[in-house]
Amino acid sequence: MGDKVKKVYIGMSADVLHHGHINLLKIGKKLGEITVGLLTDKAILSYKKKSFLSYKQRETVIKSIKYVNKIVPQKTLDYRDNLKKIKPDFVVHGDDWKTGAQKKTREQVLDIIKNWGGKLIEPRYTKKVSSRKIKKFYSLV
Amino acid sequence: MGDKVKKVYIGMSADVLHHGHINLLKIGKKLGEITVGLLTDKAILSYKKKSFLSYKQRETVIKSIKYVNKIVPQKTLDYRDNLKKIKPDFVVHGDDWKTGAQKKTREQVLDIIKNWGGKLIEPRYTKKVSSRKIKKFYSLV
Repeated sequence: MGDKVKKVYIGMSADVLHHGHINLLKIGKKLGEITVGLLTDKAILSYKKKSFLSYKQRETVIKSIKYVNKIVPQKTLDYRDNLKKIKPDFVVHGDDWKTGAQKKTREQVLDIIKNWGGKLIEPRYTKKVSSRKIKKFYSLV
Repeated sequence: MGDKVKKVYIGMSADVLHHGHINLLKIGKKLGEITVGLLTDKAILSYKKKSFLSYKQRETVIKSIKYVNKIVPQKTLDYRDNLKKIKPDFVVHGDDWKTGAQKKTREQVLDIIKNWGGKLIEPRYTKKVSSRKIKKFYSLV
């Protein structure tokens, strides 16, 4: 029982994949088997500009990453539906969401995973390489 | 001898990774073991805007792709130095370089690989998803 492979959940859009994502996935892989909750196009549209790549195209990229075991659609920004189904031992997310727009989402995650003893792992956010910064570099924002 | 694993060479910048790259890598993987010639920052600067991600950061991403066997720096746009060293059985590149700025580079590749019977494989270019288009989407060009 103690040796059972742990389940790790990582939500992401992965519209502009960079080494910050890879670092999160590497950390997750050390903890167990990774399920990526890939935000659907609709979920992305609900809080920012339309993604450049479609869900299917982003899925093609994420499927090619060797640290990823499984991909499921995450249909809302809210993680809870997927978390209730998967009951991961770990959720991994950059520590940037402790403040700002995602703060509430984070609290909802913490609130639900405690029901099965899940843990939230928050590696330091790779500030320099957020997708937002990349878009800024490309003069979007 | 005939069963020897074939060597496949694919040059790329991979500053904005998308499913077009993944498709090329999947095709290459069916042909043999892939060496990615990852353009150095200097090589990229020689023909377009500075890359957003550094060589090391882009290497982190490409290393995580399960179809890639090896990564070597490609220090110039010109493939020939690497090709002479590696003598790949196949070079894979989108067919977009048949015209335009890369036409000469393509001819140089064809010219050198014939010395050891190498073949150029040119899958149809995924026009919709070139990095250029992504940058356009993000209002750069």
